[in-house]
Amino acid sequence: MGDKENFVKEITNIEEDFAKWFTDIVIKAELADYTEVKGFIAYKPYGWAIWENIRDYEDKEFKKRGVQNIALPMFMPEHYLTTEKDHVEGFAPEVAWITEGGEKKLEERLYARPTSEPMFCRMYSRWLKSWRDLPMKYNQWCNVIRWEKETRPILRSREFFWQEGHTIHETEEEARKLTLEMLDVYADTIENLLAIPVVKGKKTNLEKFAGAVDTYTVETLMHDGRAIQAGTSHYLGQNFTKPFGVKFQTKDGKEEYAYHTSWGTSVRLIGAMIMAHGDNRGLKVPPKVAPIQAVIVPIQMQKDGVLDKCNEVYESLKDKFRMKLDDRDQYSPGYKFNDWEMRGIPVRIEMGPRDIENNKCVLVRRDTAEKIDVSLDELDVKLNELMEDIQKNMYNMCLENTKAKTTIAHNMEEFEKNLKENQGYIKAMWCGDDTCEDHIHDVTGAKSRCIPFKEEHIDDKCVVCGKPAKYMVMWGKQY
Amino acid sequence: MGDKENFVKEITNIEEDFAKWFTDIVIKAELADYTEVKGFIAYKPYGWAIWENIRDYEDKEFKKRGVQNIALPMFMPEHYLTTEKDHVEGFAPEVAWITEGGEKKLEERLYARPTSEPMFCRMYSRWLKSWRDLPMKYNQWCNVIRWEKETRPILRSREFFWQEGHTIHETEEEARKLTLEMLDVYADTIENLLAIPVVKGKKTNLEKFAGAVDTYTVETLMHDGRAIQAGTSHYLGQNFTKPFGVKFQTKDGKEEYAYHTSWGTSVRLIGAMIMAHGDNRGLKVPPKVAPIQAVIVPIQMQKDGVLDKCNEVYESLKDKFRMKLDDRDQYSPGYKFNDWEMRGIPVRIEMGPRDIENNKCVLVRRDTAEKIDVSLDELDVKLNELMEDIQKNMYNMCLENTKAKTTIAHNMEEFEKNLKENQGYIKAMWCGDDTCEDHIHDVTGAKSRCIPFKEEHIDDKCVVCGKPAKYMVMWGKQY
Repeated sequence: MGDKENFVKEITNIEEDFAKWFTDIVIKAELADYTEVKGFIAYKPYGWAIWENIRDYEDKEFKKRGVQNIALPMFMPEHYLTTEKDHVEGFAPEVAWITEGGEKKLEERLYARPTSEPMFCRMYSRWLKSWRDLPMKYNQWCNVIRWEKETRPILRSREFFWQEGHTIHETEEEARKLTLEMLDVYADTIENLLAIPVVKGKKTNLEKFAGAVDTYTVETLMHDGRAIQAGTSHYLGQNFTKPFGVKFQTKDGKEEYAYHTSWGTSVRLIGAMIMAHGDNRGLKVPPKVAPIQAVIVPIQMQKDGVLDKCNEVYESLKDKFRMKLDDRDQYSPGYKFNDWEMRGIPVRIEMGPRDIENNKCVLVRRDTAEKIDVSLDELDVKLNELMEDIQKNMYNMCLENTKAKTTIAHNMEEFEKNLKENQGYIKAMWCGDDTCEDHIHDVTGAKSRCIPFKEEHIDDKCVVCGKPAKYMVMWGKQY
Repeated sequence: MGDKENFVKEITNIEEDFAKWFTDIVIKAELADYTEVKGFIAYKPYGWAIWENIRDYEDKEFKKRGVQNIALPMFMPEHYLTTEKDHVEGFAPEVAWITEGGEKKLEERLYARPTSEPMFCRMYSRWLKSWRDLPMKYNQWCNVIRWEKETRPILRSREFFWQEGHTIHETEEEARKLTLEMLDVYADTIENLLAIPVVKGKKTNLEKFAGAVDTYTVETLMHDGRAIQAGTSHYLGQNFTKPFGVKFQTKDGKEEYAYHTSWGTSVRLIGAMIMAHGDNRGLKVPPKVAPIQAVIVPIQMQKDGVLDKCNEVYESLKDKFRMKLDDRDQYSPGYKFNDWEMRGIPVRIEMGPRDIENNKCVLVRRDTAEKIDVSLDELDVKLNELMEDIQKNMYNMCLENTKAKTTIAHNMEEFEKNLKENQGYIKAMWCGDDTCEDHIHDVTGAKSRCIPFKEEHIDDKCVVCGKPAKYMVMWGKQY
């Protein structure tokens, strides 16, 4: 028990200081680490393996939908940034500038991409000739740079990793359809792979992407009731294709600018996964995305036959599950239990001399801490069932948390009270004016998360100004 | 026939101007394209898909050997560059500098990684405590920046893509073993996936990596007799671990610096693949790495049932091979034949009304242009055989070219004559002195490729100075 107590002490209590709990998990579970470059982090093998699993899942879904991967330059000339008015306003304050290369000052400064609409559009303008070339559906997995003032490991770093898809189309209708198709891919990834329920909706004017006509979002709610925008998909119209010259010859021989979309998800998804599922014992990784799905911990490892049997079981499972056998001899089983719990491995398999004698083992679920005796003959089948069950249960636990932290506000008093007493999503009616939205943010610190696709009618009037309401909006504080 | 002639005219003759032929292929086969950022290129879907196939192959081999992927910052503080003496000399002239971020001048300039030995070592120094933590075998797939004066698409761009593995070990012996193990992975990838024979060997002192104790290489020979260094693996000893403080507690409680390796392969492998296999009809992609292994071209597509049957065949093959059905109606079959040949698709499947009547199709091999009538019932089996045969034949053709362009020089006269008359690898004896190596370069333009692992005794004396020879060296001009 001493082991356990010491261990848990190293992690800040989740209810006391959630932000610090998060950072503790990132470091202790060895997902990532700080570096000597301010605002830049290093992904360690465990964190990066989670990202690779997310990437592989999404990449397959993109490719099913005819998206192809490409790779465009990371550095762009200054005039790319300034070509689209809203874009430069949104991104200029946070770009990094390259001013010298090969011991020479550059004639025109280059900036490291914070996002690549300009570069995609310039390349599309080279590649697009006729309506026959459309649609073009390209994506890239890459690093981007945003010089954030305040950074936080994984959630907000100056360099981060993401995919950015950019497609161009013959018609607005087709482009709008693709925008929502990709939002559905994101919703599927987050719900089915990461076991986090999402709210799908449209961003308000103030919250949309710099340069977009419409921004759609999948919003997720964390353990502490703050939201994370987990993925966005933008319908950009001709906002970029006009200034960047992305035009084509239409079927009837006219010239037209293409209709453009862009959509992205990033390593923030790892952050969302940590904050949506974790608890005081550490991380919880959903089985489908877990780099290690089950860990075998031998008990009384020094006894004859224990390690052999553990190895035999490991070998029999390793092609069906992502397995680990913890045969480190410098740690006690108790230490190992805590260590792997902290790292969020979905299932622990304990095997000692008595278990082996009885041809059984003990499975321990990370999500519920339930212990289950299982015959070694049924281990394979039982593990399969458990993985499915844990995946579902983690989703449901998260859904329960989201429901419990979703409240309705009929007026600003209720809004503030709700936010103070039960931080989470607040549903409230809105007239559609930026000023009312700004007022809510100024008074409460909450922002609009989205206008959900599943609209509800709560009241007739805007919660701020009392004028007729146009939308029911989900509001909340965010990471 | 008109189609074909027009088509081939667009590509420079391979024997007349190989460098221009190469660039034509890169652009026309849509592997990559120029951008408006000087020295930076854009990878298009076809080129990037080849890189993804190489990456997936190597990544699996790395992981089998216990290597784990991580992701480290792309930007490093200036003092990282200057910490190791040889390293700064080698790389300072070609780095790009970031001097401003978030609208503020940086206190210390950052440089974009040209390679990440300093960053890996700083992180290892944080992570390494005791001998129990060793070995650490980490790799990253990433972009790097080298501000080359002269650039060439894919082969030498200012931004390029690669993997860089860095491992640290308890002993020199273990580190040296890993260095060669990774060289073997490279040799396997290049020979078995890309169908290019390699010469494995050690770099001379002048040609080794800036900061290495020993550099090992896999060298490949192109169609025109110039070499490409296709991958390198370095034993770095404690050259970086000492200045960067990568130390650990040994088993007997002492303090020791770790032994370090690094190894990399890049998108140059795509360049090598193009230049080793291509011909006057365009690119040739080996089946194992080909994004499209077989393309179905319907003949008389407008006739009843042709497209239906082609679709049926496509559906029956698409889970076994990477297939494409070319149902574009704006192009003639002749145009399509040339188009797909130029893109190097290993097998073309032609199907017209008469073929369909006879339950057959015509297969055309890209490597030999051989046409084969095949019953549709046997198509699957035959395609499998063909893929294997084409892969082998491409390797053999390349091996023949390499052999035919490998000559022996007993003196400098022969050396120059060989290089002029039959450019390729030249085997010649060497005393081991830098000055003799420099002399060869000054006089002939050739550099040492490597001291091959398979040494041969040609003469007793150095081809330059006549003093006793220590090594047989492979020399040659390079890309």
